[in-house]
Amino acid sequence: MTDRQKSETVSADGVRRAAGRIKGYAVRTPLLENDLLNEAVGGRVLLKPEVLQHCGAFKFRGAYNRLSQLTPAECERGVLAWSSGNHAQGVAQVARIFGAPAVIVMPSDAPALKAEKVRAYGAEIITYDRYTQDREEIGRKIAEERGLSIAPPFDHVDIIEGQGTVALEAAEDAAAMGLTLDAFIICCGGGGLTSGCATILEDISPSTEVWIAEPEGYDESWASVRDGTRHHADISRFTICDAIAAPTPGKLTLPIMQRLVKGGLSISDDEVARAMVYAFKYLKLVLEPGGAVALAAILSGKFDARGKTVGLTLSGGNVDPLLFASILERFGSERLNDVSG
Amino acid sequence: MTDRQKSETVSADGVRRAAGRIKGYAVRTPLLENDLLNEAVGGRVLLKPEVLQHCGAFKFRGAYNRLSQLTPAECERGVLAWSSGNHAQGVAQVARIFGAPAVIVMPSDAPALKAEKVRAYGAEIITYDRYTQDREEIGRKIAEERGLSIAPPFDHVDIIEGQGTVALEAAEDAAAMGLTLDAFIICCGGGGLTSGCATILEDISPSTEVWIAEPEGYDESWASVRDGTRHHADISRFTICDAIAAPTPGKLTLPIMQRLVKGGLSISDDEVARAMVYAFKYLKLVLEPGGAVALAAILSGKFDARGKTVGLTLSGGNVDPLLFASILERFGSERLNDVSG
Repeated sequence: MTDRQKSETVSADGVRRAAGRIKGYAVRTPLLENDLLNEAVGGRVLLKPEVLQHCGAFKFRGAYNRLSQLTPAECERGVLAWSSGNHAQGVAQVARIFGAPAVIVMPSDAPALKAEKVRAYGAEIITYDRYTQDREEIGRKIAEERGLSIAPPFDHVDIIEGQGTVALEAAEDAAAMGLTLDAFIICCGGGGLTSGCATILEDISPSTEVWIAEPEGYDESWASVRDGTRHHADISRFTICDAIAAPTPGKLTLPIMQRLVKGGLSISDDEVARAMVYAFKYLKLVLEPGGAVALAAILSGKFDARGKTVGLTLSGGNVDPLLFASILERFGSERLNDVSG
Repeated sequence: MTDRQKSETVSADGVRRAAGRIKGYAVRTPLLENDLLNEAVGGRVLLKPEVLQHCGAFKFRGAYNRLSQLTPAECERGVLAWSSGNHAQGVAQVARIFGAPAVIVMPSDAPALKAEKVRAYGAEIITYDRYTQDREEIGRKIAEERGLSIAPPFDHVDIIEGQGTVALEAAEDAAAMGLTLDAFIICCGGGGLTSGCATILEDISPSTEVWIAEPEGYDESWASVRDGTRHHADISRFTICDAIAAPTPGKLTLPIMQRLVKGGLSISDDEVARAMVYAFKYLKLVLEPGGAVALAAILSGKFDARGKTVGLTLSGGNVDPLLFASILERFGSERLNDVSG
C-alpha cells in the first residue's frame, strides 16, 4: 500500500496498528510515580518518560511507524525530514535501521547535542535560518530533486498514529494499576503527539480529559483550539523550549485538537527550568525544556491536580549540557517546597 | 520470626523471598539498552537504572526487605540507620510506609540533596564527622538507649538479600530478551549490592561473571578479594564517589565476594565524571558519581565488553546540582567518541 492510497484519517485503530509495528523496536517506556511529587501536588501523578525512548524523545515512534511502511525501493532512495532536532534524530535512527539514506533539514541554531546525535546516526544535515527561511519549502524541493520520501515532523497520519502509542501504553499501564486517568497533559508543539494521544484516549479511556502545555508565546495551539481560528506564534520571540516552538498547528492536527482537547496551559521559561531541576533532583531524569512543560504545568499549580489521577508526558531530554548546567546553578538550590511556590 | 532466630546465611532463596516482599512496593526498574552505547563498546550493554527506584537508588529494596520483617512493636519503637545518604533515604522512606520513627546517623559533609530528601521523609538526622568519629558506635549507642531496630547499610542478611533483587530482575529481563549475561558489573561500596547480586546470579545464571567497579583509592573490596586478606581504604583521600567510599568490606559481604567475584575495576574521578556526562547526553539519566562507576568501567575500556552481553548497575542518582553542573561544564563539550578515548 503506497502512501497515496492510504487513509488520510487518524484513527484509534491506526494507533493500535502502529503499536504492533513498533513492538520490539521502540522502548516500551515505564509509567513512573513518585511519592514526594504526589504529595507536593495533592494528587496521583503518572509520568510517561519518553526521555528513555530511543533517541531521547517520543519521536522514534512516529518515525518508525512511517518508515516501516515504505517500499524497499522507497527505502533505497531515502527519506527526508525537517525538524528542530528530536524528530531529526528519530528519523535518522530509524532510517539507519531500514538501511535508508536520510537527509535532515535543521535550523542552524539547533542545540549542538541534537545535531551531534543526528550525525552519529549517519544522516546528512542541511541547515537553514529559521528566522528567514521556510524549512518545508527547502525540504520539499530537495525531496523532489532526489526522489526522497518525506517524513514530516507532525502533520502526517503515520507520524500522528505512531506518537499516539504513548497514550495507548500509558492508559494500559494505568489500567493495570487499577487506575483511570482523569487527565493526560501533553507537551505540545505542532500537535502530532497531542492528536495521536487524544485519538486513542477518546477510544480506550473516554473519561480522560486531554490538556496541552505550551511555552508562553508559543501557545498558538490552545489559542487556535479555543478561538476556532488558526493562530500563529511570533517566531522572533525567544523561548528555551526549542523542541516545541512551532509557529502554528498542523492541517491534520488542528481539527483533531479542536474536537478533543479540553484545555491549554501556558508555561514560562522559569517554570520550565524549575520543572527540569525537579526532575533532576527527584526523578533522576534529564528533561529538555520542551519535554518539561507538562510537569511544569502541575508543579506551578497552573493545572490543579488535587484529588486527581493525572498522566503526563516527559517527552524529550535532548538538552545541551551548558544550558542544563546554567539552569542547575540558577535554580538548583531552591528547596522542594519552593518549586510550587 | 525475630531477627535473632533468623538465618545468618545469605541465600538465593532469601533473595527470592525478598523479591516477593518488595513486589508492588519497589519500582521494578526496566532493563535499558542504547544502540550508540553498544556500538561504542562493541558489545551489548544492558543497563539496570536503579536511579529510577524510589529514593533514587537501589537502597529502597534492602530497607524494605528489612523493615517489612519487623514486628508491630519494633516498628512502633522505630529504626536507626547510619549512611552516607542513599541508604538513609531508603530507610527514611520505608520507615514512613510502615509508620516507624526513623533516626539517621549521617556524615556532616553528606551531599545536601541527600539530607534534604531524608528530612522530606520525616526522619531525624544526627550528624557526625566522618574523618574522626565512628558512625557505627554512635548508631549502636543511640539504638540501645531508645530501643530502636538497626538497619545497617550493607552487613545484614535482609539488606543483602533485598539488594540481590536487582540482579534477579536483570537476569529475568535478559532471559525474556533471549539473552544470557556474560558479565554483570556492580558499583561496589561495602559489598551489600554485590554479594546479594552474586548470590542470586550463582543460582539462576551461573555462567555470568560478577565484576565490581570501585573508585580509585576506595578499591579495598577487590584488593581484599584478590589478596584473601582484609584491606582498609585511606579515608582521608577525597573521591567524588561519596556513596561508595566504604572503608572496608563487611563481615558478611567479604566471604561472599571472595567466593563469587571474578574481577575488580578501579575507576578515576575523571572517568566517573565522563560516564555521568555520557548518561546525561545519551541515556537521559541522572547518575551520581558512585552510581556511574560501572558504566565508567566499560566506557573507559577498563572492562572490555567487545563481543559480550554485559549487564551493569546504574545504582544511584542523588548528586548535588552544583557538582553536576560543574561536571557538565568541564566535560560536556567532549564528543561521543571522545568518551572512550
